Amino acid sequence: MIVVMKPKFTKDQMEAAIRVMEAGGVKVMVSQGSETTILGAEGNAAGIDREKLAQLPGVERVMRVSEPYKLANRKYHPDDTVINLPNGAAVGGKRLAVFAGPCSVESRDQIVSVAKRVRDAGACALRGGAFKPRTSPYAFQGMGTDGIRLLCEARAETGLPVVSEILSTEDLDLFEEHVDVIQIGARNMQNFDLLKHMGQVSKPILLKRGLSSTIEEWLMSAEYIMAAGNHRVILCERGIRTFETFTRNTLDLSAVLAVKRQSHLPVVVDPSHACGQAWMVERMALAAAAAGADGLIIEVHNDPEHALCDGQQSLTPDQFDQLMAKLRPVAACVGREV
Amino acid sequence: MIVVMKPKFTKDQMEAAIRVMEAGGVKVMVSQGSETTILGAEGNAAGIDREKLAQLPGVERVMRVSEPYKLANRKYHPDDTVINLPNGAAVGGKRLAVFAGPCSVESRDQIVSVAKRVRDAGACALRGGAFKPRTSPYAFQGMGTDGIRLLCEARAETGLPVVSEILSTEDLDLFEEHVDVIQIGARNMQNFDLLKHMGQVSKPILLKRGLSSTIEEWLMSAEYIMAAGNHRVILCERGIRTFETFTRNTLDLSAVLAVKRQSHLPVVVDPSHACGQAWMVERMALAAAAAGADGLIIEVHNDPEHALCDGQQSLTPDQFDQLMAKLRPVAACVGREV
Amino acid sequence: MIVVMKPKFTKDQMEAAIRVMEAGGVKVMVSQGSETTILGAEGNAAGIDREKLAQLPGVERVMRVSEPYKLANRKYHPDDTVINLPNGAAVGGKRLAVFAGPCSVESRDQIVSVAKRVRDAGACALRGGAFKPRTSPYAFQGMGTDGIRLLCEARAETGLPVVSEILSTEDLDLFEEHVDVIQIGARNMQNFDLLKHMGQVSKPILLKRGLSSTIEEWLMSAEYIMAAGNHRVILCERGIRTFETFTRNTLDLSAVLAVKRQSHLPVVVDPSHACGQAWMVERMALAAAAAGADGLIIEVHNDPEHALCDGQQSLTPDQFDQLMAKLRPVAACVGREV
Amino acid sequence: MIVVMKPKFTKDQMEAAIRVMEAGGVKVMVSQGSETTILGAEGNAAGIDREKLAQLPGVERVMRVSEPYKLANRKYHPDDTVINLPNGAAVGGKRLAVFAGPCSVESRDQIVSVAKRVRDAGACALRGGAFKPRTSPYAFQGMGTDGIRLLCEARAETGLPVVSEILSTEDLDLFEEHVDVIQIGARNMQNFDLLKHMGQVSKPILLKRGLSSTIEEWLMSAEYIMAAGNHRVILCERGIRTFETFTRNTLDLSAVLAVKRQSHLPVVVDPSHACGQAWMVERMALAAAAAGADGLIIEVHNDPEHALCDGQQSLTPDQFDQLMAKLRPVAACVGREV
Repeated sequence: MIVVMKPKFTKDQMEAAIRVMEAGGVKVMVSQGSETTILGAEGNAAGIDREKLAQLPGVERVMRVSEPYKLANRKYHPDDTVINLPNGAAVGGKRLAVFAGPCSVESRDQIVSVAKRVRDAGACALRGGAFKPRTSPYAFQGMGTDGIRLLCEARAETGLPVVSEILSTEDLDLFEEHVDVIQIGARNMQNFDLLKHMGQVSKPILLKRGLSSTIEEWLMSAEYIMAAGNHRVILCERGIRTFETFTRNTLDLSAVLAVKRQSHLPVVVDPSHACGQAWMVERMALAAAAAGADGLIIEVHNDPEHALCDGQQSLTPDQFDQLMAKLRPVAACVGREV
Repeated sequence: MIVVMKPKFTKDQMEAAIRVMEAGGVKVMVSQGSETTILGAEGNAAGIDREKLAQLPGVERVMRVSEPYKLANRKYHPDDTVINLPNGAAVGGKRLAVFAGPCSVESRDQIVSVAKRVRDAGACALRGGAFKPRTSPYAFQGMGTDGIRLLCEARAETGLPVVSEILSTEDLDLFEEHVDVIQIGARNMQNFDLLKHMGQVSKPILLKRGLSSTIEEWLMSAEYIMAAGNHRVILCERGIRTFETFTRNTLDLSAVLAVKRQSHLPVVVDPSHACGQAWMVERMALAAAAAGADGLIIEVHNDPEHALCDGQQSLTPDQFDQLMAKLRPVAACVGREV
Repeated sequence: MIVVMKPKFTKDQMEAAIRVMEAGGVKVMVSQGSETTILGAEGNAAGIDREKLAQLPGVERVMRVSEPYKLANRKYHPDDTVINLPNGAAVGGKRLAVFAGPCSVESRDQIVSVAKRVRDAGACALRGGAFKPRTSPYAFQGMGTDGIRLLCEARAETGLPVVSEILSTEDLDLFEEHVDVIQIGARNMQNFDLLKHMGQVSKPILLKRGLSSTIEEWLMSAEYIMAAGNHRVILCERGIRTFETFTRNTLDLSAVLAVKRQSHLPVVVDPSHACGQAWMVERMALAAAAAGADGLIIEVHNDPEHALCDGQQSLTPDQFDQLMAKLRPVAACVGREV
Repeated sequence: MIVVMKPKFTKDQMEAAIRVMEAGGVKVMVSQGSETTILGAEGNAAGIDREKLAQLPGVERVMRVSEPYKLANRKYHPDDTVINLPNGAAVGGKRLAVFAGPCSVESRDQIVSVAKRVRDAGACALRGGAFKPRTSPYAFQGMGTDGIRLLCEARAETGLPVVSEILSTEDLDLFEEHVDVIQIGARNMQNFDLLKHMGQVSKPILLKRGLSSTIEEWLMSAEYIMAAGNHRVILCERGIRTFETFTRNTLDLSAVLAVKRQSHLPVVVDPSHACGQAWMVERMALAAAAAGADGLIIEVHNDPEHALCDGQQSLTPDQFDQLMAKLRPVAACVGREV
């Protein structure tokens, strides 16, 4: 961290600034020129109260040199984090992790039949929504606890671990008991209360990027979970809001590269939500693999035309088979397996 | 709602589409041209499952003609909603409602002294954060329950009702018992679980606009609270995220006009969070009044330089006095009082 | 400017960095700590090739402390710039400058009748488009040279100076001869060729902010014009692109405050283009005045329903009369006249 | 196009609306329900003056059903457009077209040596900037005419056609004579005067997407060039502005899919400008190929550390060799050659 003093600062003001910096656990290097005086922090500046510093009289500007996240930072944890799933699959290793399934659990037949198909095609986990965050209070809100129960039945039938989104801390016990990977949706990426609770569960967390969040904010949300005790965080790029309306969101594949450089956490890509249109999913999935994603989340529905939610962006099981077939050679080009 | 059929649709497909529309409680008007066939909904289309309709085979496009919100819609509730506060003040009437106070409650002295000053200057409620949503898990997270207790003491001393942000449903009883207006912060605007719980409390809700949300999404979040039973929602424009970095956010004053046309709910403006810089607050407060806001939320701190949070954007009590003095004539220009 | 060296840099690398900085005309202050080494520029760093510096080996980061614009910077020109118009009016002084007129010049009758009405209501200049930048090549492109001729006739009848947008350097002589204030539209804000040519005309330039441009980019475009020789630049805030679709653009009134702090150039506000809806214009005009704008640009059309362009956002002359009547007391509240 | 009439419209108003529609060359289908009356256009609605229609009294809303572009529209031109280059290469066919070269032409040695290397690695054209659009008037503006001359020398040495950006219509003859593909930069995407002139040259145009433009606006700019007579337009996705600051821009690969569905024009991708960092270019280039791009534009510099412009994002010739080697198998996965 670097502090630039105002052109006309007093000695007292500089000393006050130094005290705030030292209170954050760093040594301070003072560099006084004829026009500009700079205070440089030696050591990890994450503990400095940056805001307090910025509003001191005499302080012109506080500039960060290092990232505000520590536990999620690759600097302090150079090796890739690999997160193991109960069925022996893993996220973050050489093999791409593909999570697939319907937007919403709708019935036993639906979820079991989709689960079988995606397992046979090579998916390593079943995704399915039981609690749905819908923009309208009048839209289908998911099957709730019954949906979780049906996911468990599909797991029993197929051996696939299940991934599902949590909306409320009231459902913590339910998810802790029955769900294998707990998803935090984009709209809850900065629901800090929920994040803190995620730090206390024993399951990996799939943290979706917020609709308009920066990579740094996303990693800070991962940091919340990690600082609260759970280091098993899988990041998920699912498209950001831009001015483009042709696609539901804009898939930001360079974020995959950026996150993998800045952090050791694995990153998966959800082209279904990003694009919002089934015909785009296959190509964007291939592009995600080429870019270096650690995995994919793909919406698959046995009958997209009658899906209760997001049918437009769901692949049929046959289309998913085809996607997986095309994914293998592309993954191989970048040294990965499927 | 208008449905455009694809150029080559079948009779069965059209009938399927009509069935979905009729299931939503409308009559359907069919208009068949030589090239284009259109289905028009007669009546309130809010009950139609738009997504389901859109993914039917044979359907080219579904276009909404009316708004997806009902309870918040001025069409069905032409008169302005006025929300009364315990001290006789009101939000949404002729008199501008000014909520003022520090970003965070820090001590009894601080909150009581600020409360007295802002009451004397004409504020009708005291705002103060006890639970703070911070981007970093390492930043000051607020005094919590103690902060709420201090707000109550400040209320006892001044008679001002208190406004504070809730982050967790675990604190519902605390807020229901002690807080007069419960604030939902921008990052929780689409925390649908929290919104549903807000429908069940007996206090007015101050709903801040999400960082990148559209007016429609904001009103849909109000609709969530209202549909769950609480019709006393105050909307708060607090700036949206744009590419501009000079200001913390970009205050969208045309949203005030837009919301007041579309909805009967009162709208207040928070220039402190929008601009992020104390020197801008007065002018933007005047502009908000000129634009037609029903009130303002202003950060006031007895000692901004040593504030634990957001000191840069806080006014001193003296600056707040001056703002209120300048606000009166501007409000008068547009037929309002302060 | 501050340069942070990488943790493991060589002496040669640091010397190379110092040479690049010194070549930009500054003295360099070296501050070596045990972990961090910083190079600070003493003096005006605007001449340093920042990009070159940033890509030197051994350089971790280059941070700007001062603004990249000089001629437009209030630091080096503390007094407000006031731009005089031929009829004795001025932009940037105590009196608000109101430019009014139709989006497009359509006929002699139209432009002359509107000109008379807006002059009588207190406008100080007539705006009217002769060359129109339209998103579609099939839309009305303006009357061209004939439009300019009609503007001259309206000026002859009313004494109002005329403001019109230039699209092509081929029309430079035409504009230099006949137009009093030459407008650069939002889509051309970074048409650097056109900006350079604007530096060589003798008329004031009205520079609209680009659709998604930052304040700094906007001021850098002003700097282009000024560096090429024309210091008479009027900035115009006309709304920026955001995710909100209710309004055509989002009027950024805090930009008025920001620009006036950073620059000495006058700033006017165009609520008509920002909002895109006539019913919003009056209120946003009052808000702009309260925020501190130096003037307004208002679309006025004698018959908005039959306007060839932007009729939806045009006021009638009667509505403009009313706006001006309401503007006076608001302007007075902030120490301005109309 | 569909027109929804207001709840209480008059017969005259409806007839006026019908007249405007018919004047645009369509037949009008009237559909009167008890609450809603709709006018539907039969036939191509691109000729209808939509804005005029929208502001008629009695008209509630005008909704577009079809795209506003015709010449660029795949509907009316189902086959892919293939654009041939003088050296027998083509853009839009089975073989990916790779344009490579430095951001700026700096010297004969530089441009010739880079040209040889990129040709040997498989590039089909040499890109190099002679006229540079720089945000700052004080930054290097390019070698100008001398740069074009050096490009010609590099072409003479290597046989590679040259691609360069035009900024000014004053340089039209120069470009028409010496440049093989004329580039319109992102900042000039809506410089309609320049676009119209591009319609009159005999060379293919490389049209970069604007910084914040939608796909529709981009295609409308292509339509400008095509409507003015030049149908040889190559679209270039180069990243859009988002809130993310880690990358210079955000590469929108789903735009490649979208554009290829909506239009028959070829689309190439520029990962260098999008990411702004050399280490990201290879991966994003592979992703672009996987997504279905027709080609790539890659910045290659013989000595990036001393480049006068954009060195941070330039590959060395060796890195470019490696990129091409990795590109081949990925392209093969999606049925393309390099």
